Amino acid sequence: MGKLLASIRGPEDLKRLDVGELPGLAGEIRDLLVDSCAKTGGHLGPNLGVVELTIALHRVFDSPDDPIIWDTGHQSYVHKMLTGRAEGFKALKQEGGLSGYPSQGESGHDFVENSHASTALSYGEGMAKAFKLRGERDRTVVSVIGDGALTGGMAWEALNNVAEHDDLRLVIVVNDNGRSYSPTIGGLGRHLASLRVTRRYEEMLDFFKGKLENVPLVYDALHGFKKGVKDIVAPQVMFEDLGLKYVGPIDGHDEQAMEAALRTARDFGGPVIVHCVTQKGRGYAPAENHEEDQFHSPGAFDRATGLEKPKGRIWTNVFAEELVRLGGERDDLVAITAAMLHPTGLNEFAEAFPTRTFDVGIAEQHALTSAAGLALGGLHPVVAVYATFLNRAFDQLLMDVALHKLPVTVVLDRAGVTGDDGASHNGMWDLSILQVVPGLRIAVPRDGERLEELLREAVEVSDAPTVLRFPKGPVAASIEAVGKLGEMDVLRAGDPDVLLVAVGPMAQAALDAAVLLDAQGISATVVDPRWVKPLDEALVLAAGAHKLVAVVEDNGRVGGVGDAVSRLLRDNDVDVPVRTFGIPQRFLDHAKRAAILGQIGLTGQDLAREITEAVAKRSTPIDAPH
Amino acid sequence: MGKLLASIRGPEDLKRLDVGELPGLAGEIRDLLVDSCAKTGGHLGPNLGVVELTIALHRVFDSPDDPIIWDTGHQSYVHKMLTGRAEGFKALKQEGGLSGYPSQGESGHDFVENSHASTALSYGEGMAKAFKLRGERDRTVVSVIGDGALTGGMAWEALNNVAEHDDLRLVIVVNDNGRSYSPTIGGLGRHLASLRVTRRYEEMLDFFKGKLENVPLVYDALHGFKKGVKDIVAPQVMFEDLGLKYVGPIDGHDEQAMEAALRTARDFGGPVIVHCVTQKGRGYAPAENHEEDQFHSPGAFDRATGLEKPKGRIWTNVFAEELVRLGGERDDLVAITAAMLHPTGLNEFAEAFPTRTFDVGIAEQHALTSAAGLALGGLHPVVAVYATFLNRAFDQLLMDVALHKLPVTVVLDRAGVTGDDGASHNGMWDLSILQVVPGLRIAVPRDGERLEELLREAVEVSDAPTVLRFPKGPVAASIEAVGKLGEMDVLRAGDPDVLLVAVGPMAQAALDAAVLLDAQGISATVVDPRWVKPLDEALVLAAGAHKLVAVVEDNGRVGGVGDAVSRLLRDNDVDVPVRTFGIPQRFLDHAKRAAILGQIGLTGQDLAREITEAVAKRSTPIDAPH
Repeated sequence: MGKLLASIRGPEDLKRLDVGELPGLAGEIRDLLVDSCAKTGGHLGPNLGVVELTIALHRVFDSPDDPIIWDTGHQSYVHKMLTGRAEGFKALKQEGGLSGYPSQGESGHDFVENSHASTALSYGEGMAKAFKLRGERDRTVVSVIGDGALTGGMAWEALNNVAEHDDLRLVIVVNDNGRSYSPTIGGLGRHLASLRVTRRYEEMLDFFKGKLENVPLVYDALHGFKKGVKDIVAPQVMFEDLGLKYVGPIDGHDEQAMEAALRTARDFGGPVIVHCVTQKGRGYAPAENHEEDQFHSPGAFDRATGLEKPKGRIWTNVFAEELVRLGGERDDLVAITAAMLHPTGLNEFAEAFPTRTFDVGIAEQHALTSAAGLALGGLHPVVAVYATFLNRAFDQLLMDVALHKLPVTVVLDRAGVTGDDGASHNGMWDLSILQVVPGLRIAVPRDGERLEELLREAVEVSDAPTVLRFPKGPVAASIEAVGKLGEMDVLRAGDPDVLLVAVGPMAQAALDAAVLLDAQGISATVVDPRWVKPLDEALVLAAGAHKLVAVVEDNGRVGGVGDAVSRLLRDNDVDVPVRTFGIPQRFLDHAKRAAILGQIGLTGQDLAREITEAVAKRSTPIDAPH
Repeated sequence: MGKLLASIRGPEDLKRLDVGELPGLAGEIRDLLVDSCAKTGGHLGPNLGVVELTIALHRVFDSPDDPIIWDTGHQSYVHKMLTGRAEGFKALKQEGGLSGYPSQGESGHDFVENSHASTALSYGEGMAKAFKLRGERDRTVVSVIGDGALTGGMAWEALNNVAEHDDLRLVIVVNDNGRSYSPTIGGLGRHLASLRVTRRYEEMLDFFKGKLENVPLVYDALHGFKKGVKDIVAPQVMFEDLGLKYVGPIDGHDEQAMEAALRTARDFGGPVIVHCVTQKGRGYAPAENHEEDQFHSPGAFDRATGLEKPKGRIWTNVFAEELVRLGGERDDLVAITAAMLHPTGLNEFAEAFPTRTFDVGIAEQHALTSAAGLALGGLHPVVAVYATFLNRAFDQLLMDVALHKLPVTVVLDRAGVTGDDGASHNGMWDLSILQVVPGLRIAVPRDGERLEELLREAVEVSDAPTVLRFPKGPVAASIEAVGKLGEMDVLRAGDPDVLLVAVGPMAQAALDAAVLLDAQGISATVVDPRWVKPLDEALVLAAGAHKLVAVVEDNGRVGGVGDAVSRLLRDNDVDVPVRTFGIPQRFLDHAKRAAILGQIGLTGQDLAREITEAVAKRSTPIDAPH
């Protein structure tokens, strides 16, 4: 670690630095960012873009009295370094180490741990209202939000409310790097993109830099000069007519310009937008040159070349390739992503069928209801999204898609335990909340072949929505069925002791458990239902023939497939004991997926032990009254 | 029914009418609207406002080839009358009669049955994309949305996407009546309100009317004249800089002006906003003069006076009064509504504590995350919302509130079966999907006293979010406990045959069932858990001492309290048979609440019969292996 950075234990140390030392500090920060991300992986690109912005924030404001709220949170590395956590970057995102997102447990400078986008303005509006009501008028709240996150509807809802209260001490920093994960879409993105290639934009930057010391920087929305600026820079289109004050655009890599703008905004006393323009990946050539995502969040990489370790074949690849095949067979198939074209693998479909692929921005709600519209118009949309982000569009899936029985297929990547991105990235909710959606069918593949097979079956359903979910990481090794039970695959036939229902990728753990149970003299039949909603009625008869039913799923154990199996049996008056295994219903700490699965008892060994105990408790006799 | 209206079996008949006959038709329509709503209740105000607008739409477009999508759908009465359903208004919202919302089953002119707000632009965008891809270039999609619904984030997400595709044949009609349920809030609403009192606005209306025949009505966003208009009317602030074309403002009660504007928009060939200004309640004095909501959705009323039948004391009243009491005791208590100040009863709190009440617009997402911010700032927010609308903010409750263990109390009105507003108003999802939220506590009062008591307990919880839910309609008669079992109320003590767990307002049905069961020689203990999440551990011991456990709740039976009780027992190795009763997991048709509860088997009689059968099946012996 560089010696300037090493000298900073908190913002007060940063404030003591000489202005002339700041470029050196920025260099040391970038060095540590590249170094630690090269070792552990991490959100390198976004953080390289906010180095000067973050230095300026902590020199101007008094965190944590002035709370700084980071939208999505993955651009808080620099903030962590400046609030006494530079040392922690040795173990970034490692079990027990520094979180990749703000964390209340790590520091009093951190407030918001959730990493879902577009929330920072709402938090900020609420906090600023609270400070006002409590008479804490010397506190200013700072919300830092990217231009990509402004495509999310929550941001609009918040801005409309911020405009209602013109005495809130709230500074909204729009970190405009022209992209979320990929370039920002829509009217907003297009307008901005067209401006970036004009000279006028660069001229405005120079103009503002030159004037910083001399002119008042907060313009009234109706001020004549402001109208001129408005024509060449886009993001304030949402702000101005709502009556919000605006400062900018500022070169986000000019630390002194940023400080001046932020001071002006802070002293204004009402809500102000500070619009700064930054470059994702700034200062590290392999990131700057990475057109696809400007090195958004690489795994471990070689520092000299920027090359990541090859990842091997992941579930996403299997989905991506099969969808292209299906797209070639059916021209009514269209694909939708919410600002995640590459992470969801839809880039391959987009290359093959560009007019049939839609990136709607960070806008999951619109993604689902637009899909409903596409389906009403006679097409079959496939919406690909991370499992955790579908929560944003639960109402739309229920009321806009399912109520109308529309053939929309939702593909959930990163379902189950995702691991090192922490609590808000785990996809542990979908198999529970989706149970309530009438008519919805849910498929969970256990391996790549099943993914292909079930995706094909899903897009063939024409009178109801379908969901397909699979985890993060390397695709599981193939497991062939040894037989059928209704539509379910029998993976292992046993005597009628235990019926083990393995949901998708838990198949291998279930088979491992079955082998261990055998050694205890307990015979287990293992089935994979493939479609977990609705459940196969064959399960009822099969369950009745066993002494114990165990269900294992990579989903929260509350309300998931285990509960559904239990309900199915109850409803059919089958009172055989049921044990359900899944993710404990709490917010998980970050660690590697495999480590977490071990911690929470979802390994073959854990399952075998638990099932053995459950059988033992019921063996004298299994069905004694209590 | 008037004779002009009687002659219209569909839009083709309407198109044949002479222009001079249209005012007469509008009068007949208003007459039927007032008449039928006076008898059955209904969304009178919104429909009185769209009479001319709807006539113009059906004269200009070719529904259903040109689909008309009504946002929220409650303003589709006139559309129904003009598409052959005027006769049906005799039985508006009655069981088996005309739905109060568009219905695919009623007519091919109806597409969207969901009545949650702010969705019409997303549907429209999707449908227009589908028509474009399928080469159906002669079809135009019309989305009709209110200015209130534009405060919802989905609308922004959709507009940003519409702007991405400048060749979509999509006409967006903004029906601007200055309000949703109550006046539109925020920057948008304030700006508009200030304009309505100026003469310039009226002058612009006249100007446009005068020019209609002479000037091209679709202005380019950068057109100089348009800039002038922009300064005096608000809603297009969102549109213009996104690159969307705009026509307006048009007097929405000038049918010929509307036709001209719509024709221009239709012929343009790309997305166009048509901004029309209407008056909610137009043409019926008691509605026009109803400041609170312009007679949004009255129950049956006297046509001459506009006076509704008194409703008696409803659950909402109890909540409203108790919250005011609590607000007087604690000045850290603040209240949030999403454009439903009066329907949720928060108007009383607002009168007592105006600076502590926030109406955020139709913006449930922001409501929850702003509440998180308020709580981070040291206050205790109470968010009051209809149960079905909380689905819009599930992610925010989970990730923004619960992940941070924030003391936010969410009060769900209209939980359970609501009845005549149809499928999308029933609050049958919350007790299921909220089960997955770590740390969240849920209370369900069985009567008014319990509502007061539980609300008080809820706002005292300082380290976790709480939810309190109660149904629509008259508050239930008080039921006193006869004892305690842990923290649960025992409502009836019985022998250890059946343990009946009654969730909140199902207490009376459970007690009724217990009496009937007694006559069958089956003794039932009835308990009310009060807090249904987490469940009281005392339930485990109690259940183990009974031969059968039955759970009854006014919620979807998938994933609700019944499943939670079953899981609790399983996890404690209590294998006593469990039967669960709730709303069947399908979209319910509209009818009165009591009628629906009867249909779906949630009466004392139904419960007694089912439980008797379940006991009988297990009586020889109850715990025999299968």
